[in-house]
Amino acid sequence: MADIKRIETGARMSRAVIHNGVAYLAGTTSAEKSPDIRAQTRDVLKRIEARLAECGTDKSRLLTAQIWVKNIKDDFAGMNEVWDAWVSPGNGPTRATAQCELAMPDILVEIIVTAAV
Amino acid sequence: MADIKRIETGARMSRAVIHNGVAYLAGTTSAEKSPDIRAQTRDVLKRIEARLAECGTDKSRLLTAQIWVKNIKDDFAGMNEVWDAWVSPGNGPTRATAQCELAMPDILVEIIVTAAV
Amino acid sequence: MADIKRIETGARMSRAVIHNGVAYLAGTTSAEKSPDIRAQTRDVLKRIEARLAECGTDKSRLLTAQIWVKNIKDDFAGMNEVWDAWVSPGNGPTRATAQCELAMPDILVEIIVTAAV
Repeated sequence: MADIKRIETGARMSRAVIHNGVAYLAGTTSAEKSPDIRAQTRDVLKRIEARLAECGTDKSRLLTAQIWVKNIKDDFAGMNEVWDAWVSPGNGPTRATAQCELAMPDILVEIIVTAAV
Repeated sequence: MADIKRIETGARMSRAVIHNGVAYLAGTTSAEKSPDIRAQTRDVLKRIEARLAECGTDKSRLLTAQIWVKNIKDDFAGMNEVWDAWVSPGNGPTRATAQCELAMPDILVEIIVTAAV
Repeated sequence: MADIKRIETGARMSRAVIHNGVAYLAGTTSAEKSPDIRAQTRDVLKRIEARLAECGTDKSRLLTAQIWVKNIKDDFAGMNEVWDAWVSPGNGPTRATAQCELAMPDILVEIIVTAAV
């Protein structure tokens, strides 16, 4: 199985899986659970950046992003503000955003990305 | 980064990204925001078809589709009617459909596809 | 199009598509619609396992999983209990879970996976 590399694998999931030159990251949420969408989004993106580095890649090589927001009416603008400032200029991934209730009530945003390695 | 091709890249995202022989399209919504699910679905699929052509591929080479519908009870049948008529016979992608509130209240359907290039 | 292999293709979708060494499975729901999240999750995972075998792979080679749960507050723990017991030790895929209303009101869980072939 040397063609699949798993990172931080527990009983439930791996935090990242690399196969065929693509890194798939698990859905990432904020560690802090601030009630502020901007703070949660910043923390999510910081954690994604660290995970991409572990995979041997970085945000300039993102392929796709799925963004789940708990309150899209209230928080879409705030999430986008932080997201837009974070994206590597000229290297934005594809993106799709939906409103979903997430695993815990205090999670305001969860982001799932893939990147080329 | 010549191994990643990005199409219509803005500050927030790219409309499509091609890597390793796979085209990933951004979540596509209708330009028109008709209150009719059939009209919105037709427009989404028309836009996806144009985007696939820009990527050098077409709907007969779709790999996956995720479909998000705002009102699944009311609109699942209408979306499916348009979808089924559009799919290239014998070449259907995998599919998964869920109900999600989307970025704007008048968006009834958003579709995310991948295709082989 | 010999580079794309489709499995159980109907007018709407394929149940699996294989391309470039990756198997993409359609969103899988329980055949039985038991009101018990554990029973539905077990059935979904049994069906995924059978489908992976048809694709020439197995659960030890999963790459990603997306899990949609109808009632995440009530059913997250029960779904996880069955999931955790099922995962191939040391080979967990990446995972992301959200609450979504699904195609029919009696569907409690839908799971979308990809695997290396």
